[in-house]
Amino acid sequence: MESFLTIIPNLVATQEVAAATTKDIEDAVNAINGDFGMLWMLISGILVFFMQAGFTLVETGMTRSKNAANIAMKNLLDICVGSLTYWLVGYSLMYGDTSNGWFFWGGLMQGEGADLFFQTMFAATAATIVSGAIAGRTKYSTYAIFSVVMTALIYPIAGGWQWQGSGWLTELGFIDFAGSSIVHSVGGWAALVAAFMVGPRIGKYVDGKVIAIPGHNQVLATLGVFVLWLGWFGFNGGSQLAWGGADAIAASNVVLITNLAAAAGGLGALVTTWIWYGKPNLPQTLNGALAGLVSITAGCGNMSAVGAIFAGLIGGIIVVFSIEFIEKKLKIDDAIGAASVHGVAGAWGTLVIGLWGIDGDTGIGLFNGGGFSQLGAQATGVLAYAVWSVVLSFIILKILKSTMGLRVTEEEETVGLDLSEHGEIAYPGKRDRG
Amino acid sequence: MESFLTIIPNLVATQEVAAATTKDIEDAVNAINGDFGMLWMLISGILVFFMQAGFTLVETGMTRSKNAANIAMKNLLDICVGSLTYWLVGYSLMYGDTSNGWFFWGGLMQGEGADLFFQTMFAATAATIVSGAIAGRTKYSTYAIFSVVMTALIYPIAGGWQWQGSGWLTELGFIDFAGSSIVHSVGGWAALVAAFMVGPRIGKYVDGKVIAIPGHNQVLATLGVFVLWLGWFGFNGGSQLAWGGADAIAASNVVLITNLAAAAGGLGALVTTWIWYGKPNLPQTLNGALAGLVSITAGCGNMSAVGAIFAGLIGGIIVVFSIEFIEKKLKIDDAIGAASVHGVAGAWGTLVIGLWGIDGDTGIGLFNGGGFSQLGAQATGVLAYAVWSVVLSFIILKILKSTMGLRVTEEEETVGLDLSEHGEIAYPGKRDRG
Amino acid sequence: MESFLTIIPNLVATQEVAAATTKDIEDAVNAINGDFGMLWMLISGILVFFMQAGFTLVETGMTRSKNAANIAMKNLLDICVGSLTYWLVGYSLMYGDTSNGWFFWGGLMQGEGADLFFQTMFAATAATIVSGAIAGRTKYSTYAIFSVVMTALIYPIAGGWQWQGSGWLTELGFIDFAGSSIVHSVGGWAALVAAFMVGPRIGKYVDGKVIAIPGHNQVLATLGVFVLWLGWFGFNGGSQLAWGGADAIAASNVVLITNLAAAAGGLGALVTTWIWYGKPNLPQTLNGALAGLVSITAGCGNMSAVGAIFAGLIGGIIVVFSIEFIEKKLKIDDAIGAASVHGVAGAWGTLVIGLWGIDGDTGIGLFNGGGFSQLGAQATGVLAYAVWSVVLSFIILKILKSTMGLRVTEEEETVGLDLSEHGEIAYPGKRDRG
Repeated sequence: MESFLTIIPNLVATQEVAAATTKDIEDAVNAINGDFGMLWMLISGILVFFMQAGFTLVETGMTRSKNAANIAMKNLLDICVGSLTYWLVGYSLMYGDTSNGWFFWGGLMQGEGADLFFQTMFAATAATIVSGAIAGRTKYSTYAIFSVVMTALIYPIAGGWQWQGSGWLTELGFIDFAGSSIVHSVGGWAALVAAFMVGPRIGKYVDGKVIAIPGHNQVLATLGVFVLWLGWFGFNGGSQLAWGGADAIAASNVVLITNLAAAAGGLGALVTTWIWYGKPNLPQTLNGALAGLVSITAGCGNMSAVGAIFAGLIGGIIVVFSIEFIEKKLKIDDAIGAASVHGVAGAWGTLVIGLWGIDGDTGIGLFNGGGFSQLGAQATGVLAYAVWSVVLSFIILKILKSTMGLRVTEEEETVGLDLSEHGEIAYPGKRDRG
Repeated sequence: MESFLTIIPNLVATQEVAAATTKDIEDAVNAINGDFGMLWMLISGILVFFMQAGFTLVETGMTRSKNAANIAMKNLLDICVGSLTYWLVGYSLMYGDTSNGWFFWGGLMQGEGADLFFQTMFAATAATIVSGAIAGRTKYSTYAIFSVVMTALIYPIAGGWQWQGSGWLTELGFIDFAGSSIVHSVGGWAALVAAFMVGPRIGKYVDGKVIAIPGHNQVLATLGVFVLWLGWFGFNGGSQLAWGGADAIAASNVVLITNLAAAAGGLGALVTTWIWYGKPNLPQTLNGALAGLVSITAGCGNMSAVGAIFAGLIGGIIVVFSIEFIEKKLKIDDAIGAASVHGVAGAWGTLVIGLWGIDGDTGIGLFNGGGFSQLGAQATGVLAYAVWSVVLSFIILKILKSTMGLRVTEEEETVGLDLSEHGEIAYPGKRDRG
Repeated sequence: MESFLTIIPNLVATQEVAAATTKDIEDAVNAINGDFGMLWMLISGILVFFMQAGFTLVETGMTRSKNAANIAMKNLLDICVGSLTYWLVGYSLMYGDTSNGWFFWGGLMQGEGADLFFQTMFAATAATIVSGAIAGRTKYSTYAIFSVVMTALIYPIAGGWQWQGSGWLTELGFIDFAGSSIVHSVGGWAALVAAFMVGPRIGKYVDGKVIAIPGHNQVLATLGVFVLWLGWFGFNGGSQLAWGGADAIAASNVVLITNLAAAAGGLGALVTTWIWYGKPNLPQTLNGALAGLVSITAGCGNMSAVGAIFAGLIGGIIVVFSIEFIEKKLKIDDAIGAASVHGVAGAWGTLVIGLWGIDGDTGIGLFNGGGFSQLGAQATGVLAYAVWSVVLSFIILKILKSTMGLRVTEEEETVGLDLSEHGEIAYPGKRDRG
């Protein structure tokens, strides 16, 4: 009889041990996956940080040497100001994390460090897109104010619509995995508005003719594109926000198809210029690779490899025509094609999910059986971000124009912003060479 | 009596729970190690991608400024074309993964993304080695075709001999951990054949004299070597193809001895030129560091730290003499020494495993008690890859020569490939400086 | 009766299984955390390696073009020599790991590879700080000897005081998480002594006037700062020496606040020069960002986000004044401000822990309730490292001066070290451009 009394709890104990063990293993795996996720996001954030160097190289390389130090100073300002303002207010504003109050991100909560770091780098990217478009004639002080507003307000509020997890665009079914619209279009349209409002550089449009103002160092521009391409693996891959199990496979695929789209974009522009201009053109190929990257940024979690290649390829072709159109038809002097690379390709990359996007094995795009529903959501998002960015940029730049002024004097522009705005030139040692 | 009936299953249950738990833990650890492996390969692949920027910098820096944009365009082409062709056919061809058919890599299988990404970057590297050797006089269109053939056929078939897991060289006991022969020698010998068939640059050999044509920017070349060195940690370290447990220790050691070999190679060339030329020479030191890296690429999993240092050191010394020999005795104009750095040092790095290689604690080289067996396997592999690369390159370049032509006109070469092949120069802003 | 005999072991078995399973899970988690730690340290070490490229760019960009190849050669020497000597003797000396004997680090022990790799990169960094300060007039052969002594002796012995785990400064409660003092101040004070002993460049001080000698390429210098900033995430983050659980959170926060301090430092210098010079100055902003990084290197594990921002901000302001002071008052010609960026900001970054440092939730600094105790320990460490570095550098340079000589001839200096020390200039292709 005693045996019975013992056996029953004994059996229960065995079952309990089994259950507790399963739970223990699950807990351990979950903790490890959390550590994996933080590691991947931190590494990705570090890669995205490096994109600031890429932007600096592309922008200096594609513009004249007399403004190179000024561009470096603008990019330094973006990362310095962006890091501080996004920490101070941007992150709270974007993710509605008001536990520390809206206007001060008071302390680090458990495990938020990697996420805040990663997101900070996105904010700095959105700001830096503008700096290239308005190169060569914009007042540094005015740009500084604009950079603060961009990272503290324009980008975080727009980002919150989707990435907060319960924003109105999320409810609508809008997809923008890593920010074709949220980061790149917002930056690109702001760049277009800014380039329009600042006006063209002296000598760009003379007697109705469009004068090419080639950049001073295509090797640096090429290096810049490689650095951006590298950083984009973190930009898109890290947007999985996790690593481990299905997330590891998904993030790997994101990186793979990001590379395929970039390759297709570069090749698309290379071949397009070969046919159109008669020779394969380096600056446009560089823009094509970047456009390929922007074109897959929204859809890198919702695209097959073939789909990604065509998204990138078309993005790389579009960008060539878009740059020509903005420069020659709209006569807006976007010094490095930022509005085309980030704005136009960003819109394309967002829309393409509605054309041939997938969700796992299910087609959600118009051409793979998904109907118009996703395309409608994507178009709404594209429009919403365009309107937001254009309107906000316009208002802020209008205010800045009527107070501080947007533009340096004609004399300052002619001598170059390096000397007039910073008192030093970028390449002072020429007389020492040889 | 009932108790007996209950006790026995109860005991069994306890044993079963113990066994099931052990299995559960093992499964969890295996899954986590899989995630670790994917993470390490993805990060390594990202590092190897960046080597494209390194090659661009080394090749432009070590050649003249009038061809800098052309070199950038060749390197861009390599990564664009390489990414697409290797995905389309190369990977299937190399790993015999015909589940999607031989000529189309149809879809991502579970967890293949990180591996395909990593391997793609190797294919692009093999192609890009050739571009520097033939700088300054080769038609861009011809190079484009060659790049396609290299990444779609020459490299994948050669790679499959060893890295498929059941290739004929694997059966022979041949060791090439990360590709001293498979990637670097294949690229290096192709570069030698191409440099020979394209012929020397105008002004290189005049009246029997050898004229030095120094590169235009040694700082960019130095930066390029640092970028390549950085990327090589992924190239060699990622070739462990896994992380976790013994793999984590092994991959860490691979990275450590890769660095030691590079350091020894750089120092070897530095000291060699100091003795031979009278002054420590920068371009040769750069080549020495690269040769050190190539020299440890095959053996980084089969070498002690001391062994790695001597492999790299000798590689760095050899490369100085090899460059002089090819330039001055063979009179082949390899513009940046690619055949020496990748071909000769690649062969050396493969052979050295047969001299003082180890397998765990066991010596497998001639000088540490392993006899001639491993050396024979290594020599066979070196020869096989040399023959394959030389013969295939020769045939393809012969066909290209008799159809499209390999070389630009004398006038185009004199004016520079930037202007003649791409319609733009790399440094157009000179007049703006100061 | 039998049942009783069976039941009792049965119960025991269940408890044993539960205990054994818990142990198994713990063991598995510990092993995985070990793998995590190795991965994070290896990646961090790779990032720190890249700082060598950053130093090369900053130092070449901030000095004249006729010495650019010489600076590249010095930085290459540092990584080559540093990798070999630190492996040979430095690591043993620093960590007292005499299992392989003091003067030869004989073989890799299990899992030491990642650690040795990581620590090697720190040694190379300490050496390379000196090279910029004495640019433009120092004999290459003398520098080579100094670099050996630095990585083999000066740095490892100093590092052992704290990082050995049982050094005398550790006992004192001194905190230097990633080396504001141990790496940067040791390098910075050695740079100051070296700049003083080598004497100023010709033309720096003429008739009591201080002549500015601007660097030849501010874009490269900017790129260099971005590369250093990138590498610093590994420098500081990797100094956690582990990943997983609390370590993952801690290392993420280290990276986050490292970025905030760098941003604040850059902004601090930018605004300071805007006020003081009248225009925001690029080279000083670059130095400010670096000073911000140095200022948080000691305290990145013991500082709130707000504390880090103020540490960096003040570091960035101090550095501007320090550079002016050393150049104009002390009349020591530190060509790139290395003593200010690494020495002065390093001392500040070490001291600030004693002012507003934290240990978890507890204030340990003077201004957050910690009293003078920590400040005293910090000041002792700052002083100890300054004395050690100044005295050792002085003795070694004195010996080198009276044997080999420190300085090239006036003629060699005028023509540039590229030509006189290496027989080649960095930019030989100028005549080909355009």
